[in-house]
Amino acid sequence: MKTLSEIGAAAKVASYETALLSQNDKNTALRAIAESLRKNNSFILEENKKDIEKAEQNGIKSAMIDRLRLTQERIDSIAEGVLQIAALPDPIGECLHGTVNTDGLRINKIRVPLGVIAIIYEARPNVTADAAALTLKSGNSVILRGGKEAIHSNIAITKTMQDAIKNTGITKNAIQLIEDTSRETATELMRLSEYVDVLIPRGGAGLIRSVVENSKIPVVETGTGNCHIYADDGCDQKMAADIVFNAKTQRPSVCNAAESLLVHKNIAKTFLPEIKNRLDEKGVEIRGCKKTLEIIPCVPATDEDFYTEFLDYIISVKIVQNIDEAIAHINKYGTHHSDAIITESYKNAELFKRKVDSAAVYVNASTRFTDGYVFGLGAEIGISTQKMHARGPMGLNELTTIKYTIDGNGQIRR
Amino acid sequence: MKTLSEIGAAAKVASYETALLSQNDKNTALRAIAESLRKNNSFILEENKKDIEKAEQNGIKSAMIDRLRLTQERIDSIAEGVLQIAALPDPIGECLHGTVNTDGLRINKIRVPLGVIAIIYEARPNVTADAAALTLKSGNSVILRGGKEAIHSNIAITKTMQDAIKNTGITKNAIQLIEDTSRETATELMRLSEYVDVLIPRGGAGLIRSVVENSKIPVVETGTGNCHIYADDGCDQKMAADIVFNAKTQRPSVCNAAESLLVHKNIAKTFLPEIKNRLDEKGVEIRGCKKTLEIIPCVPATDEDFYTEFLDYIISVKIVQNIDEAIAHINKYGTHHSDAIITESYKNAELFKRKVDSAAVYVNASTRFTDGYVFGLGAEIGISTQKMHARGPMGLNELTTIKYTIDGNGQIRR
Repeated sequence: MKTLSEIGAAAKVASYETALLSQNDKNTALRAIAESLRKNNSFILEENKKDIEKAEQNGIKSAMIDRLRLTQERIDSIAEGVLQIAALPDPIGECLHGTVNTDGLRINKIRVPLGVIAIIYEARPNVTADAAALTLKSGNSVILRGGKEAIHSNIAITKTMQDAIKNTGITKNAIQLIEDTSRETATELMRLSEYVDVLIPRGGAGLIRSVVENSKIPVVETGTGNCHIYADDGCDQKMAADIVFNAKTQRPSVCNAAESLLVHKNIAKTFLPEIKNRLDEKGVEIRGCKKTLEIIPCVPATDEDFYTEFLDYIISVKIVQNIDEAIAHINKYGTHHSDAIITESYKNAELFKRKVDSAAVYVNASTRFTDGYVFGLGAEIGISTQKMHARGPMGLNELTTIKYTIDGNGQIRR
Repeated sequence: MKTLSEIGAAAKVASYETALLSQNDKNTALRAIAESLRKNNSFILEENKKDIEKAEQNGIKSAMIDRLRLTQERIDSIAEGVLQIAALPDPIGECLHGTVNTDGLRINKIRVPLGVIAIIYEARPNVTADAAALTLKSGNSVILRGGKEAIHSNIAITKTMQDAIKNTGITKNAIQLIEDTSRETATELMRLSEYVDVLIPRGGAGLIRSVVENSKIPVVETGTGNCHIYADDGCDQKMAADIVFNAKTQRPSVCNAAESLLVHKNIAKTFLPEIKNRLDEKGVEIRGCKKTLEIIPCVPATDEDFYTEFLDYIISVKIVQNIDEAIAHINKYGTHHSDAIITESYKNAELFKRKVDSAAVYVNASTRFTDGYVFGLGAEIGISTQKMHARGPMGLNELTTIKYTIDGNGQIRR
């Protein structure tokens, strides 16, 4: 087995090769990956079965086993995703700005790959193919470090992809998996700054925090979403209830699901009983502030609850005095992911959009729309909750950087 | 004196205010700063004198004292720089992309400030005004932490700027200086992730390395430039000599000055004696590889020399077999700042531009042109040598991030 340093060095060399691939080369390789994933589905399913059996032996939760499980349909859908990435426009080489300066130098600002991207993720084998396809399409090489529960599936998928790209003439080292899933390799990867340009963690809040705290490599934080909905004074309460119900219950395990409801004091008495009725349909637990407890029966909320991304059928509720308190609460307790106001007031809609310090700020719509596909990026490697480099859904452009090229004919600086 | 935590909290509150300032508000404040710097020049010069006297007592090098020294002309030029920043277009609020999606949501990608920017720099009082003006213009608040040798000057300049913006109705906390210049406050600042969004170090390689290694806040690395010039087989040797002479000697203390010369083996015998003659004019010390030593008298170069940014009248020289070796050498030993090829070959020019992994890649021109003004950014807060967020000269746009605003009328996710 290669050491991490060897994997890093190989990835760096590979990145100089992938950076120069033409669109046709990359798309041919991606189509070969999709075809191979389909052709090798019985091999992949067999390896996946080993992971599932082990997970069942270890008494792992059924929701997690479901995320781990592959089926022929799921492999088809992974392959389909790779083909969709092949069909996207190539970001590399785009000239973002070009001028001839007073000295006669032609100065072009060109989009280029980041180089080597490392991705640390949990037990979701689909991420293995998805992340490899996105990084290859954007001209990068990738080092994958998936969760130990999915190791057999990840090795099988990676091998399939490596063989496929090798057949189209691209080095296998463009896509590498760290097979040793001990905690030490994750820590070591976070220190591989000599070779790795950017580290993207994909997973729960604990994983993200650990990476941000320990990495010596630039990190793009993704995916932690303590998303709020603020029901303003005078809002359309039917619309507000529909949106809260959708944002909380349509898919509670995802990062753009709502976790906290803020209600203007003037509408609390009518709105809270209505929203409780709606949320009761799905058995949502309400954790309310003191004033909420006076209006509807619910669990008393702790301060910690307001900081929490439940990812479950639980919602925190707080009654606020006015929009300023709502905005201040969101900026303090939120994770700067996606937050919404439900309002009929033009002034408050504008205020909320300008003052809420989040990647996506909504007026009269569900937070569930924050997504690379919905936002027109074509694909998504994660949703950044930091401000540097990328914010919000990250597509192919967010896996690139720029370079200036300067063409002269002997110019010197006076 | 405020604690660092208090400074951070105040900066965060201020950043919510500066983010909402109109262009007029910001430009009025910047013009007031320029006027106040000029009006208060005797106060600033008096305080600067204290720094100079202390530096002289401490036997500090005259080059450093020169950078520390202010004169009426220098204050005028600092004020002029602030007025130039006032005259630049405001980056904030620009809609970078806007669509209406299939659900009827209007999705706009809007340029917004980063928030709180911290800048750690050395004993150059001009940076105090320059950095404050750039961060204010881009809607951010700033925490300045300058070198201890310039503390009296920095306090005087900061007080002048704070009073000026306060008079135009902007909180003084938009521009704060850390007055305690102990090593501890720098370390503490690097951990203030609760309040600071981005940390930009400006200074020598030691400062940058220390910040990158210790910071818990996202960092933009700036300014370390081990820049190369590669004289290709068949190049115009007169042009090559002019460019090397310019890039090495026109201003050796800056980051875009050349530090290393690579020469194709086929031209070494004619080119090296010629370049030695030119560099001798300025007393440049040549540190050559073994093969170079066989052609011209010079100091033998160590491997370490090829990694070194001399910032002085010293240059390392290596003879290479071909362009591939030159490119591999630059990518290994360089700092990914600015590198040039001198060539008549179209193929090699293209190869060099595509394969050299640097922020600015030149053909037939001096590396000295890498600069925010030359590249058309209007101003510059530093030159990024990392790939994330910003690469190359950083202007106002590089001090911003984006936010998605989504306007709906009740949309929920199906």
